[in-house]
Amino acid sequence: MADTAVEAPPFYCPIESAIHPEAEETERRALAWIGRSGLCRTETERARHAGTRSADFYARFAPRADPDRLWAAACWVYWGFAFDDARCDEGPFAADPAAFAAMAFSVQRALEVPGRLHCADPYAAALHELGELFRAAAGPVQNRRFQQAHRAWLTGVQWQIGNRATGRVPDLDGYLSMRLHAAGGGPTYALWEIANGAYVPDREMDSPAVRALTEMAMMVASLDNDHHSHVRETTRRQTEQNIFTILMTHHHYSPCQAVDEAVALRDAVLERFLSLRNRVVPRASSPLRHYLTDLGHGIRGNIEWALRVPRYLGADGVVPAQSARLPTRTATSHWTDTPRTSRRDPRRLPSIAWWWNDLLF
Amino acid sequence: MADTAVEAPPFYCPIESAIHPEAEETERRALAWIGRSGLCRTETERARHAGTRSADFYARFAPRADPDRLWAAACWVYWGFAFDDARCDEGPFAADPAAFAAMAFSVQRALEVPGRLHCADPYAAALHELGELFRAAAGPVQNRRFQQAHRAWLTGVQWQIGNRATGRVPDLDGYLSMRLHAAGGGPTYALWEIANGAYVPDREMDSPAVRALTEMAMMVASLDNDHHSHVRETTRRQTEQNIFTILMTHHHYSPCQAVDEAVALRDAVLERFLSLRNRVVPRASSPLRHYLTDLGHGIRGNIEWALRVPRYLGADGVVPAQSARLPTRTATSHWTDTPRTSRRDPRRLPSIAWWWNDLLF
Repeated sequence: MADTAVEAPPFYCPIESAIHPEAEETERRALAWIGRSGLCRTETERARHAGTRSADFYARFAPRADPDRLWAAACWVYWGFAFDDARCDEGPFAADPAAFAAMAFSVQRALEVPGRLHCADPYAAALHELGELFRAAAGPVQNRRFQQAHRAWLTGVQWQIGNRATGRVPDLDGYLSMRLHAAGGGPTYALWEIANGAYVPDREMDSPAVRALTEMAMMVASLDNDHHSHVRETTRRQTEQNIFTILMTHHHYSPCQAVDEAVALRDAVLERFLSLRNRVVPRASSPLRHYLTDLGHGIRGNIEWALRVPRYLGADGVVPAQSARLPTRTATSHWTDTPRTSRRDPRRLPSIAWWWNDLLF
Repeated sequence: MADTAVEAPPFYCPIESAIHPEAEETERRALAWIGRSGLCRTETERARHAGTRSADFYARFAPRADPDRLWAAACWVYWGFAFDDARCDEGPFAADPAAFAAMAFSVQRALEVPGRLHCADPYAAALHELGELFRAAAGPVQNRRFQQAHRAWLTGVQWQIGNRATGRVPDLDGYLSMRLHAAGGGPTYALWEIANGAYVPDREMDSPAVRALTEMAMMVASLDNDHHSHVRETTRRQTEQNIFTILMTHHHYSPCQAVDEAVALRDAVLERFLSLRNRVVPRASSPLRHYLTDLGHGIRGNIEWALRVPRYLGADGVVPAQSARLPTRTATSHWTDTPRTSRRDPRRLPSIAWWWNDLLF
């Protein structure tokens, strides 16, 4: 497939911006953790981890979190980006589904097993340490939720790696389902309870409406990241599976049409998210209301983070020496008040059509 | 590795036998479902499904279940064995980890997506129908638990398939962790709430002690199935990964030593299960007590079912024409009152050592 230059269009996102007041202190502490985690073998690696700005990222997902718990959550985000780069999108596992399955399973088990555990693999060892931190910070229910979201993430990555190995390209519905899981939004949002020391009652958290809202927030953020990471992936030759190539391959769209359609699809999901959330909030418990508010903060924060993060701005993902804070990508506005209209009805996509089901509330 | 004739030794199992009084009616109704499920293309297939005696199996796991819910659960067990044979242990996916990942993901999504869903794959379509039955029979919390256990099962199978594709053999700890998930005990036990219309509060269900008890019951049943299926797998040339080959490969045990050690390990897990359960029961809610009792019934029932099921007795897994009820395998006793002692301390196996942690209660 020909290389295609895609400029990120402005984002429709009628959600207020928020960031935790201790974001910078959290970053300092989380960088100290990643520095001693065993995942930084070189100064370049350390700089690349720092360049993910993971603490800034999660400070936007949980702007009212308890600071110590926010730190633990931010450490996982650093871990997640490191794992993604070393074990998922690049490295020896990126196109080896058998090896990935064994490795991912033992990493997942390291997260789940409580108490002392020797792990030869530094990624498993670091994740086990985070699991212990999370068990100290939150109860077994919140930890179980995080662990299960973590496993689901890895199954999405597993599928993606299999596609890479065999040159298969899923259709649009399959891609959305894969991306929904592989992008890591599941564990990111499941960290929210741990970061906030909060507990959303299970009858609320597992209800179809809240599940749909969580998935929709994950999907919007995932599709937004397809825009952000497209530039980065193009420079690293990883453009085989994203929303644009899927639309161009299966629907014969031009690059511009593919961008238009991807934006319209994403905007339709966000509109549904906002309207369904409005209907759920009046009946929600206080922790659920807080959770639903921060699902939106995550959508907004993900965009704001991506617009200034070295991971997506620099080809090597490293913070330039002269400044730890980069300016945003361009001087033009990144925002629009108007959602685009899709020529495709998202309710015809089988694996997400249920988000529009009137029986959800 | 040389083929090894392994005779199943007697089982240590100080747990009472139980079976649902409507087991036969459940079987009749479940066979009618599997007959119209789209998974029976030939009479041989129908006979093989019937030969799993899945309804008898689940009637032993849930001897006090609501009959209609028991039927729905039994249908899933038929589906599970059919899927296992067609998509996991044999067939085009058995050694193709990339293809399995994509297929398993879409099957899992078919289970999770509520409402109308068209699935081209008959296994996905049948599972989606079961998902709808389960949503009608139980609440979102119980369904979410089942779905997550189902996903974890498929990740175990994914690992196993990767090993088969590459000729890798995990070490003992890795094997136990893989088998714990790949054997399907997770979704089987997670069906219990659906079958009983019961709800174990999440703070109990997700507590480390109940998690450990569930995993131990899964492990005992899995290791028992390694005995039962060894004969069957030997005739079908599928002996590459089981507890005996692992012990012979990594620990250089003779076949007899491997059987002794496998039994001793399994007996140690069962003893720990029984002692931990005794300590948890006095503080348990009524639904949790019922659940813990039936974890034990599952261990016992799994053995009793296996001793008379055509799946493990006949090379083709089909019920002989003259009788739907086979005699048990031999006339000698299948039971022993004495657990064996392991020469290996199971608490040195990293992924299960935590089951012996004193902090669990």
